[in-house]
Amino acid sequence: MKRLIVDMDDVMADATGQFIYYYEREFGVRVDRAVLDGKEEGEGFPENHHILKQFPYQHNFFRTMQVNEGSQEVLEALNKKYEVFIVSAAMEFPQSLPEKLEWLNEHFPFLHWRQIVFCGSKTVVHGDYMIDDLPRNLEKFNGEKFLFSAPHNSHINRFQRLNNWKEVGEKFL
Amino acid sequence: MKRLIVDMDDVMADATGQFIYYYEREFGVRVDRAVLDGKEEGEGFPENHHILKQFPYQHNFFRTMQVNEGSQEVLEALNKKYEVFIVSAAMEFPQSLPEKLEWLNEHFPFLHWRQIVFCGSKTVVHGDYMIDDLPRNLEKFNGEKFLFSAPHNSHINRFQRLNNWKEVGEKFL
Repeated sequence: MKRLIVDMDDVMADATGQFIYYYEREFGVRVDRAVLDGKEEGEGFPENHHILKQFPYQHNFFRTMQVNEGSQEVLEALNKKYEVFIVSAAMEFPQSLPEKLEWLNEHFPFLHWRQIVFCGSKTVVHGDYMIDDLPRNLEKFNGEKFLFSAPHNSHINRFQRLNNWKEVGEKFL
Repeated sequence: MKRLIVDMDDVMADATGQFIYYYEREFGVRVDRAVLDGKEEGEGFPENHHILKQFPYQHNFFRTMQVNEGSQEVLEALNKKYEVFIVSAAMEFPQSLPEKLEWLNEHFPFLHWRQIVFCGSKTVVHGDYMIDDLPRNLEKFNGEKFLFSAPHNSHINRFQRLNNWKEVGEKFL
């Protein structure tokens, strides 16, 4: 079985949507997702950028993220055909660790805890394929790399791109 | 820099001592460490074995483990010479995740969060050397394997053995 490494934030979970929601709740301004295109993570919001760095430290930020459309069905099918590992660079946010585990258990109950990895740097994991929204995670990966589309990576052209979970299914199933 | 993968429980932390302490606190019987030689983890205690499986789910079990002698000094030196990753199969015990991170921050403050990995199965990590007390973690590792002595592995002879942190220092520094 080939090993497939899958990222959480902005791949399985709608992290961008969570930033937009938290920003609106705090400042009363709903930022359109399209405005964030090609901007670094946390850029593109009209003001108070510094507060964006605080949201991921807040209770429930990771626990209450929306599931990206199609990710559950496609991952459940992938899980029968590949050795799937969910690898999330979560260590920067200590309180995210149990929240992310609970989130996975709720929304992806078919994944075993043996398939979950929380790390700081993804350089230590090896596999055949990696699906991630961050170029820095893909760059040092030993296998085949796939950039999952998110506003902050819309200007990156040096990786194979998967725009959504429908495309993930078409590529891997 | 060569990559060195180091385990936590019964390598950096005295997990065996924590089981002995929790058992004594619960049943009033102090089990000698030597009695556990050659027994599987959680075996060798006089009775109520089933309760041993409950200790790791209790609050503070991982947070309050004693640091194994010499591990701090030797790891601080190793950290300058190797690309050190601390890899702990912690995912089975969700509440251990923040406890282990706090424990590392308290006792090993020279380690960056980028160097920490909490996983279920260690098959996904690659490196040049691995120091671990569990044969099942070493078996599928791609690099050179070192069994760190613990009572439960005293009968295992198929790996290079490191008996304590003094020997780790002599081997790697």
